[in-house]
Amino acid sequence: MGLNETLAELAGLQKKLYAFQTASSSLYLDATTTAPKDTAEGRGVALGILAGERHDLLTASETGALLDLLWSQKDALDQLHRRQVEELRRERDRLTRIPADEYTRYAMLTNKAGDVWRRAKEQNDFELFRPVLEELVAYNIKFAGYYDSVKAPYDALLDEYERGVDMERLDSFFATLRARIVPLLQAIGEKEPPDDSFLRRHYPVEGQRKLSDHLMQVLGLDRAHCAIGETEHPYTLEFNNKDVRITTHYHEDDVASSMYSVIHEGGHAKYELGISDDVQYTCLAGGVSMGVHESQSRFYENLIGRSLPFIQAIFPKMQELFPEQLGDVTAEQFYRAVNKVQPSLIRTEADELTYCLHTMVRYEIEKQLIGGTLQVKDVPEVWARLYQEYLGVDVPDDRQGCLQDSHWSGGAFGYFPSYALGSAYGAQMLREMERDIDVWGPVSRGDLSQVSEWLREKVHRFGGLLEPADVVKNACGDLDPTVLTDYLERKYRALYGL
Amino acid sequence: MGLNETLAELAGLQKKLYAFQTASSSLYLDATTTAPKDTAEGRGVALGILAGERHDLLTASETGALLDLLWSQKDALDQLHRRQVEELRRERDRLTRIPADEYTRYAMLTNKAGDVWRRAKEQNDFELFRPVLEELVAYNIKFAGYYDSVKAPYDALLDEYERGVDMERLDSFFATLRARIVPLLQAIGEKEPPDDSFLRRHYPVEGQRKLSDHLMQVLGLDRAHCAIGETEHPYTLEFNNKDVRITTHYHEDDVASSMYSVIHEGGHAKYELGISDDVQYTCLAGGVSMGVHESQSRFYENLIGRSLPFIQAIFPKMQELFPEQLGDVTAEQFYRAVNKVQPSLIRTEADELTYCLHTMVRYEIEKQLIGGTLQVKDVPEVWARLYQEYLGVDVPDDRQGCLQDSHWSGGAFGYFPSYALGSAYGAQMLREMERDIDVWGPVSRGDLSQVSEWLREKVHRFGGLLEPADVVKNACGDLDPTVLTDYLERKYRALYGL
Repeated sequence: MGLNETLAELAGLQKKLYAFQTASSSLYLDATTTAPKDTAEGRGVALGILAGERHDLLTASETGALLDLLWSQKDALDQLHRRQVEELRRERDRLTRIPADEYTRYAMLTNKAGDVWRRAKEQNDFELFRPVLEELVAYNIKFAGYYDSVKAPYDALLDEYERGVDMERLDSFFATLRARIVPLLQAIGEKEPPDDSFLRRHYPVEGQRKLSDHLMQVLGLDRAHCAIGETEHPYTLEFNNKDVRITTHYHEDDVASSMYSVIHEGGHAKYELGISDDVQYTCLAGGVSMGVHESQSRFYENLIGRSLPFIQAIFPKMQELFPEQLGDVTAEQFYRAVNKVQPSLIRTEADELTYCLHTMVRYEIEKQLIGGTLQVKDVPEVWARLYQEYLGVDVPDDRQGCLQDSHWSGGAFGYFPSYALGSAYGAQMLREMERDIDVWGPVSRGDLSQVSEWLREKVHRFGGLLEPADVVKNACGDLDPTVLTDYLERKYRALYGL
Repeated sequence: MGLNETLAELAGLQKKLYAFQTASSSLYLDATTTAPKDTAEGRGVALGILAGERHDLLTASETGALLDLLWSQKDALDQLHRRQVEELRRERDRLTRIPADEYTRYAMLTNKAGDVWRRAKEQNDFELFRPVLEELVAYNIKFAGYYDSVKAPYDALLDEYERGVDMERLDSFFATLRARIVPLLQAIGEKEPPDDSFLRRHYPVEGQRKLSDHLMQVLGLDRAHCAIGETEHPYTLEFNNKDVRITTHYHEDDVASSMYSVIHEGGHAKYELGISDDVQYTCLAGGVSMGVHESQSRFYENLIGRSLPFIQAIFPKMQELFPEQLGDVTAEQFYRAVNKVQPSLIRTEADELTYCLHTMVRYEIEKQLIGGTLQVKDVPEVWARLYQEYLGVDVPDDRQGCLQDSHWSGGAFGYFPSYALGSAYGAQMLREMERDIDVWGPVSRGDLSQVSEWLREKVHRFGGLLEPADVVKNACGDLDPTVLTDYLERKYRALYGL
């Protein structure tokens, strides 16, 4: 078999993986948007089989032989194919190291854990979730050993979400953030908070839907390739670079909630839609890592979306849509309101400044759980202590404490730092962008095309072609948390007159 | 390997087929309801691969060996498993007889043909569609030979849609219908038509959506297992017996259009939701044939939905939803309006009486096309002649003539008779039902539970466990078109005072 035929097989393999992924995504989209209530069972059967097909295909000996053959000729491959083989081999290695029976039992456990977590949260009952969480932690410690038996277990897990990142780097990263954010927060706490009561007037869903349409237009999201739906929890789902869906949730007593969900998810969608055609239907399609993905969503949400120039650009349209609710409000007042700093209990509702502290709490707990220095039963207590220490708030119950996030129930340990890394990358990208182009003039006129173009060129188009760290480095240099803290200091000192 | 293990393999095979089908259905549902406009390409790639996986799985030699092994022990199998093996062997035989390259080329052709047909219809240009239709006819003649080299080609195709039905039976069936319906139609044509102008007043979509909800409730469709969506052309899609979706299309100037779509699709949904748990995730899940499926949809739409007792039951709610539009109308007037007989050009808009004549035109043309006695280029002319002969209407153009239906572009030759068969089966079922239970008392009070129960017991629950002809025979005896014509005569003579 010649190289061209072998490469055709490689393409065929990846198209199959793409088809299974597309099928699962479609079922997930349906489940969260339009499926009737009591239909999970049949969908679960189909999803389980599709996941099994993907697993069987990747771990098949024919797949191993194909990838080994190509790897043996890697010097003859172009970058695109070499990278595909490298990534597929890594994924295959990872899967084959987990014994098949453990893989199946773990899949069943995470499937069950989602339901148990939801009930535990509803009933504010950590004890209900505890045994499942213990099992999940034990599996993840074991799997970490399969992934990399040399590294510390939590480092091996971190590597899954943001390759190249480990505890040593994160400890220093978070220490810098904490050292700068906590005193800033204390200083802000002594100042008069801005009035944000008008955000909670009555904003009918119909008007909010029109606002979403307008925001998508300003973001430059082509509606022929990007639809918006409504779900309980907003998310972005990518089928390919020509077909991305975002979702939001409308709260009639909170205009900022859906507004910033749309901008956040819109940032994820911009990334996916900006990926080059070259990598479509391959394992390199899609954003390169969670950290880089969050850098894009948080870039649009915070660095652009919560800036005064952006708000000045969209505020006339908002007043047109909500004349009674916003007629007596200025763009400047709105800007202050959506940047109100308020230490709180719930991560997803946190402001830009305190957000990193929420992820830090989770990082500290995960590090100790996977490191074996913290027992699951003690999580609620440590959670409460850290929230008091970092944010100065009392945690009244576990529902608003360690049961608030779905991540652990899905088996995701090591994911949370991506959110903070994304914020840091985004701040660094903004600094570079400001050196290259006039960012704020066009943004203040509602023109985000140059911003889009810069991000597409520097970040989006590569997809998974480069390592996450290389994407970041090419776009804005090595990770440096002081760029984020400098930005936050500048912004919040000005806002609060410090 | 013991029998139990072999049966477990059989179940696994069918679950995989179910998963591929579920995946394709989900993508289709998304495409027709929420997908952005320019996203067909990536979905097409995934759908092609999923169809290929299904084909490869069924035609694999391991599958053949498994089915042969089970067939050799068929006396040891219970009815459920014997029937599964029988159906899977039939499907596998059918697929393996078509050479792989022809199968692929035909799949590509039908994929392309849909687009070509749509454009040809839009542009009213039969010549654009002609070459594709010629290829489709040629393939179907060839495939008919693969399916059954002894039968006449059109008989072999008919057998695919309604096993046991052939031209001999259909010729006599349609001759009976024609002999009774055409004179009745002529007599009606001499009478004063009822006023139906109020059906075309302005009916806002919001009110029509509430009417759909009400109709689904009256039909006893459990919304926890059956959702309603909006598409250009209404259809029903079944994932399994706990998850069925219907769709409709709202026309603000025609209240009857969506109303009867919902009742029609609701009939299909009742069938799918009534199938027994025993056959789920097997090849026996789903309705047994197109004819039996149409018997259910048309039963609810016409025999129940266009009856006076049913309209009396729902009319108060309709007046409540549309006080301005229907305040000056009585239930009796509404009944007469939705049963107005009007020979017309478009099948999907035809009344209950003329509908069979529309399918008869298509039957005659298909019979000759596949029989080789009619050339594709002459279809428009024959179409016009038959519409004049059967319905007495002039066909002004091909868009309203032979380009109106999508069936042929999808490669479906032999499907149309199912609609007429469904009407005939339905009339026979109603006669039996009236012997068994009090149908009209409860229906006039909006209580369809006994009707549902009768159909579930006699038709729905079996799914594909029995042959289509046996399902019909068990429920209402052998096919006898005079039951339908007697019913139509009775109904329309009374309506038109003949």
